[in-house]
Amino acid sequence: MKVAIVGATGAVGQRFISLLQDHPWFKITALVASERSAGKTYAEAANWVLNDAMPKAVASMPVLASDDRLDADLVFSAIPSGTAGPIEEKLSGAGLRVFSNARDHRMEADVPLLIPEVNPEHVALVEVQKRRRRTDGYIVTNPNCAAVVVTMSWKPLHEKFKIKKAVITTMQAISGAGYPGVPSLDITANVIPFIGGGEEEKVQTEPLKMLGNFENGAVKNAAFPISATCTRVPVEEGHSAVVNLEFERITNENEILETWSQWTAEPQKLKTPLAPLRPLHVKREENRPQPRRDWNLEKGMAVSVGRLRKDNVLHYKYFVSGSNTVRGAAGGSILNAELMYAKKML
Amino acid sequence: MKVAIVGATGAVGQRFISLLQDHPWFKITALVASERSAGKTYAEAANWVLNDAMPKAVASMPVLASDDRLDADLVFSAIPSGTAGPIEEKLSGAGLRVFSNARDHRMEADVPLLIPEVNPEHVALVEVQKRRRRTDGYIVTNPNCAAVVVTMSWKPLHEKFKIKKAVITTMQAISGAGYPGVPSLDITANVIPFIGGGEEEKVQTEPLKMLGNFENGAVKNAAFPISATCTRVPVEEGHSAVVNLEFERITNENEILETWSQWTAEPQKLKTPLAPLRPLHVKREENRPQPRRDWNLEKGMAVSVGRLRKDNVLHYKYFVSGSNTVRGAAGGSILNAELMYAKKML
Amino acid sequence: MKVAIVGATGAVGQRFISLLQDHPWFKITALVASERSAGKTYAEAANWVLNDAMPKAVASMPVLASDDRLDADLVFSAIPSGTAGPIEEKLSGAGLRVFSNARDHRMEADVPLLIPEVNPEHVALVEVQKRRRRTDGYIVTNPNCAAVVVTMSWKPLHEKFKIKKAVITTMQAISGAGYPGVPSLDITANVIPFIGGGEEEKVQTEPLKMLGNFENGAVKNAAFPISATCTRVPVEEGHSAVVNLEFERITNENEILETWSQWTAEPQKLKTPLAPLRPLHVKREENRPQPRRDWNLEKGMAVSVGRLRKDNVLHYKYFVSGSNTVRGAAGGSILNAELMYAKKML
Amino acid sequence: MKVAIVGATGAVGQRFISLLQDHPWFKITALVASERSAGKTYAEAANWVLNDAMPKAVASMPVLASDDRLDADLVFSAIPSGTAGPIEEKLSGAGLRVFSNARDHRMEADVPLLIPEVNPEHVALVEVQKRRRRTDGYIVTNPNCAAVVVTMSWKPLHEKFKIKKAVITTMQAISGAGYPGVPSLDITANVIPFIGGGEEEKVQTEPLKMLGNFENGAVKNAAFPISATCTRVPVEEGHSAVVNLEFERITNENEILETWSQWTAEPQKLKTPLAPLRPLHVKREENRPQPRRDWNLEKGMAVSVGRLRKDNVLHYKYFVSGSNTVRGAAGGSILNAELMYAKKML
Repeated sequence: MKVAIVGATGAVGQRFISLLQDHPWFKITALVASERSAGKTYAEAANWVLNDAMPKAVASMPVLASDDRLDADLVFSAIPSGTAGPIEEKLSGAGLRVFSNARDHRMEADVPLLIPEVNPEHVALVEVQKRRRRTDGYIVTNPNCAAVVVTMSWKPLHEKFKIKKAVITTMQAISGAGYPGVPSLDITANVIPFIGGGEEEKVQTEPLKMLGNFENGAVKNAAFPISATCTRVPVEEGHSAVVNLEFERITNENEILETWSQWTAEPQKLKTPLAPLRPLHVKREENRPQPRRDWNLEKGMAVSVGRLRKDNVLHYKYFVSGSNTVRGAAGGSILNAELMYAKKML
Repeated sequence: MKVAIVGATGAVGQRFISLLQDHPWFKITALVASERSAGKTYAEAANWVLNDAMPKAVASMPVLASDDRLDADLVFSAIPSGTAGPIEEKLSGAGLRVFSNARDHRMEADVPLLIPEVNPEHVALVEVQKRRRRTDGYIVTNPNCAAVVVTMSWKPLHEKFKIKKAVITTMQAISGAGYPGVPSLDITANVIPFIGGGEEEKVQTEPLKMLGNFENGAVKNAAFPISATCTRVPVEEGHSAVVNLEFERITNENEILETWSQWTAEPQKLKTPLAPLRPLHVKREENRPQPRRDWNLEKGMAVSVGRLRKDNVLHYKYFVSGSNTVRGAAGGSILNAELMYAKKML
Repeated sequence: MKVAIVGATGAVGQRFISLLQDHPWFKITALVASERSAGKTYAEAANWVLNDAMPKAVASMPVLASDDRLDADLVFSAIPSGTAGPIEEKLSGAGLRVFSNARDHRMEADVPLLIPEVNPEHVALVEVQKRRRRTDGYIVTNPNCAAVVVTMSWKPLHEKFKIKKAVITTMQAISGAGYPGVPSLDITANVIPFIGGGEEEKVQTEPLKMLGNFENGAVKNAAFPISATCTRVPVEEGHSAVVNLEFERITNENEILETWSQWTAEPQKLKTPLAPLRPLHVKREENRPQPRRDWNLEKGMAVSVGRLRKDNVLHYKYFVSGSNTVRGAAGGSILNAELMYAKKML
Repeated sequence: MKVAIVGATGAVGQRFISLLQDHPWFKITALVASERSAGKTYAEAANWVLNDAMPKAVASMPVLASDDRLDADLVFSAIPSGTAGPIEEKLSGAGLRVFSNARDHRMEADVPLLIPEVNPEHVALVEVQKRRRRTDGYIVTNPNCAAVVVTMSWKPLHEKFKIKKAVITTMQAISGAGYPGVPSLDITANVIPFIGGGEEEKVQTEPLKMLGNFENGAVKNAAFPISATCTRVPVEEGHSAVVNLEFERITNENEILETWSQWTAEPQKLKTPLAPLRPLHVKREENRPQPRRDWNLEKGMAVSVGRLRKDNVLHYKYFVSGSNTVRGAAGGSILNAELMYAKKML
C-alpha cells in the first residue's frame, strides 16, 4: 500500500521513515512537511537526528505541502498536537486513512485510541466515524508515549484482577519532546519535574479509554482513579514509570508475573511485521528494566516490566520501561495500520 | 571543640572536612581512616572528589587508625554502613560523642535518629543510652539521605494534618552512592530502578521513628504506611522525590503551602552556624524544584518543595528535592552536633 | 556608577546580573531586552536558567527597550553577535561606555579586545576610537569565551619564550551556546565536532590581536599561526582545550610551570573586586584540570592549567580549562570595566 | 572452528560473545574467567552490561579456569593488560592460536599487531613467532582502541602522501575503560584530561608498527613523530579524535576525500563475515561524525571521518570516530581471525 508521511521532517516523522524502510506491506510514496520545507528534497529539508542513517530511498524525494494531492492510500501523521487537528480532518475528509500520533482527536468518541494488543476491538469505531462524519477516510490515533508503556503493562492485569486505583510516577526520555525539544542546559545532570502539553492529564485519562469496553458502537471508559506525575530525566530513549496498583481481585506476585509473561494478543496471532513476539518482557534482575539497556527489546516494540513487589499502601508496585519513539509513537502507529491491514479492514 | 572525622578519606568524610573548614565552634583535630591510609598525610591518602578544593589545613594532617588515641571531644563518623557499627560503639564506649551517618545504630531504641528541625526532643535519648550502656560517650545518628529530604517536607504537615498514607518515588543522585560508587557505564543516559543496601526499607521506616513522640524515655514511632520506590538517576547532587500523601485532617493547597513556607524550628531559633534561615523553600514555578538548580539553596541545608496539587488517589502530591551529601549526610550530622552544642548538651 | 545591562534576559545577561549583585562600584539601574520583553518586569520577562537564584533586586525592575533613555553611565552588552553591532554603536554614539561580549566589533582597529591581565595597555584605543568616531562614548570588547581561556595561558609564556606555532583542540561546554542553545538530543552522551558562528576563526585570530603590541595608537597583531578545532561536549560549564605549542626560545617544563605560577598582572595589583588572586592555577594532579571540578576557581575568574609535558611534534603540550560564562563572558566584561574604573579611565 | 573466550565475564568478553553469536565460521565452545567465577554458569558469573541481551546459548555454559583443558581451536583473549601476558603465552605454548586484545605482547618483534585492512601482510610474523618460540600456537594482537580508529584513517593517506607529522587529541568513551571502569562521579558532565595505563604512549607508538613494512621476516616501523593527548568524555561508545597531519607529498582536500572514500582492502575483497563494505565512511555534514550517532555504522566495524580542512600549522586536519568496543576491541580481534581463516592460515 502507498503511504504518505505528514510531518515527515520532524523527529517522529524520521522514526516513521526509518521503520517503514523495507516494510513488506507499506511503501512510502509521499513526504509532507510545512510550507517552509515544501519544494526541497527530503535530504535538504530534514535535519536528520536519529542514530540510524537516513534511508537513501527518501533522500531525494520531494517534500510536499499538506495541500498537495497525495499519491497514497494511507497517511501516517507525525504532526505536533495542536496543529494536527484540522489537517488530519481534512485528509480523512479527502478519503485517506489517517494514523495519527497527535493528541488532538484521541479522546473523541468516534475515534479509536488504539494499541493493537490492548483494544483491537475498538477499530470498529472507524465505521461509526465514517458514518457520523460522512467521510470515506478516517482517523485512528495512538496514545501518548508514556500512556502506551503503562497501559501495556496494565491490560492483562486489568482483565484478570481489575485495577481499582493507580499511582504513577514517570521518568521520561528527552526524545519524547521532539527536536530541538529539551535544551541541554535544562536537563544535563538534572531532573525536570514537569512536562508541558497536559502530559499528566493524558496519562490519567487515555488508559481509561483504551481499557474501556466497546458496546453498541461506543467505548465505555474504564473508571478507576489514576494519579500521574510526569518528570523528564536525562535519558535519550525509553520512558519509564514506577507504578503502584490496587486490584479488586486478590492475587499474588507469581500470578501477576505469569499473567505478564504469558500475555499475547491479536498482533502476535496475526504475526504482523512489527509485532513483537511478546509484548511484555518480565525482567528478573533486581535492577531492571533500565531505559537505555531495555528500550530496544524486539526492535523497540516490546515493553519490559520488573521489580514487582508488595506495596504498603496500595497492593503491588513495579517498574516499567519502553521505547517512546518506536512503540510509543511511530512504531505504535504502524502497528495500528498493520492490524487493520491484516484484518482486511484498511 | 575538638573534632575527629572517622572515615575521613571517603566522599562523606570529604564533605565533613569541607563543611567544617572555618566552623566557629568545631575544629578538626584528628582524621581517621582505614589501616591502608593510616600513617600517610591526608593529601596522600585521600582521592579528593569534591568540586571545591581540599582545604589546606587538612592536607598535611596525618591520617590515624581507628585504634589510635584521638585528641577530640566529638567524632563525626562517615564510615560505611556495616563497618560502622562496632567502631562507633567502641568510640562511644571510650567516652566520645559520636555523630554518625551510618545505618547501623539508627533504629536502636536508645539512639536518637535526628533531624534538628524535626525531632529535637529526641536528643534526650542520649541520657537513656548512657545509662543503659554505661558509657560516658554516646551515639547520635542522622537518617538516610533520601529519608531526610522527604521527612523535612512531612514534619510541619504531619503536625497539622496528620499523615495517614504515603507513596514515594525517589530519583537519587550518584553522589549518594559514595566514591567510586555508581559505574558510569551503568548510569550514563539511564535510570536504574534499584538502590542496594536496603534503601527502600530505610525510607519506609526511618521517617516513622523521627515523626514519633518522645514519651517516658522512649520514642513511640508514628504508624502510617509508607510505600517507597528508590531509583538512581544521572544527577550529580540532590535527591528528589515524588510524594503522594493522604491526611487525616482535611486541608487545602493554600494551607499546605503556608504551612511549609512558615515553618521554622529549633535550629532557626538557635541560629546555629549551619542552620538555614528556612528549612523549606516553596518553589512556585511549575518546573521546580530541580536537583541541579536547587540542591545548593542555603548552602545545601534547605530542602525545596513544589508542584503541590490534588491527587486522584490519595489527597495531595508534590515534588521535593534536597542535597544528599550536605543536608542528607555531613551537614545534617554537623547540625545535630550544633543543636546539642547550642543547648549545652554536648 | 550606574550600569545598564542590554540583552538582560538571555543567559549571559543573567550572569551579568548575578555577578553585579552586591558589586561595590557598579549598580544596576536599567535592564534592556528585546521589544517582546519590554514593558514586563524582569521576573516576568526572563526565563532564569542559572543555578543561583535570581537576585531579588532585579525581579521587579521594568525591562526597557534599547530605544528607551537609559539612566546609566555604562552599559554591559550581552546581545548576541550579529544583532549587537548597530545597537552598540548607537549606544556608544549616545555617549555611553559600552562593554560588549559580542563578536561584532572585536576585530575593528580602534576597538580594544581586552583581557585585563593580558593587554591592559590596549584600553588606550578608546581615545583613538572616540576621536575617530567623534563620540563621547566608546566600545570595549572581551574576546570569545574559548579564546579567553587559551590566551590567558599564553600571555606569560609568549612574553618569555615567544610562541611560534599553536595547535588547539577545544572541548566546550553547552552553556557557551546560550539558552535554549544546544538541544539535549544532540549532545547527550555525545560529542559534536563543530561549533557554528565562526568559532574556530575567532580562536585563530582573536589571541593574535590581544597578544599584539600597542604602538603609535594602534595594535600590531602578533603573527604566529594558530590551528583550532572547536568541539562541543556534554559539560555544563567550563571550556577546556588541549594546546600544543612551539616556542622561539628554548625552555623547559619547570620554567614554564614557574612562569605560570608566578604570573600576576594589572588587576592583581589594582585588586579590583572581581580580580582573582592568581589568574592561572597550576594543577599538579595528572588528571586535572577538569571543567566541572575546576571552572569555579576564584569564583570562576581563574583559569587552570595542567598536564604540561614535552610534545613529539611541537615543543610542549598541556590542558587548560576555565569558566566560559564568568571569565569567558560576563565576568570578563565586568573586569574590563573594573580595570578602567580603577585606572580612572571610565 | 571451536572458539574459547578467555576473560569472558568482563565487558570486552561480553562483546566477543555478542559478536560471535550466529557467526558462520566460529562457535563458542569454552568460556574462561578468573578463579572466582570458575565453576559457576556464565549467567551466574557475569554481570552483563551490554545493551543487547545475553545470548541464551552461553547463559548455561560453565565458566572454566584458565588452567582447565579447553576444547577449542582458537582463543579470543579479553584479559586485562598486565594479567594477559603470561596466560596468553601459556595458551599459545599449548598449541592454541590466541587473538589478544591486551597490550602485553603488542610491540614484541615477532607478534603481529594487526588491523586486517591496514597491514594484512604482517600475519606472516606468526611463522617467525612459531619458529622462534618453538610453539604450535601463536599470539596475534589487535591494537589499542583509540589507535585502531586513528590508524584506519591514516593507512590510505600514508600510502599515497606519506605522513610526516601527526598531532592527535582523542575524546574517548567510558566503555573503553571496561566495567566498573570510570566512576560516574568523575565523568558526569565532565572531561577527564588523562587516561591511565600508558594510553598516550600506545597511540604514539602502535600506529608506527602497523604502518611499518614487512621485510625479511620483520616489521620495520614507520618513523614519523606522533603527539597524542588522550581524554575521557561522557560518551557511552565511540572513540573520537581530532587529527592534524603534515604530509611529504603535496595534496588537496578532494584527493584526500577520494582516497578515503575509495579505500577498500583485504577483508573487503575476502568478504569475511564481520568485514564492513567500506572501512571508512566520509561524512559530508559539517557537524559529523559524532560518536553516539556514528559508532554503529556497519555494525560498529566502519570508522567515519569528516570535517577535513586546511590546517594553519600542519597541512590538514579532520575529525574521526569509531566504535571502541567493536572495531576497537572484540570485533577487530574477530576480524583478525577471519582474515587468517579466509586465507587458510589458521
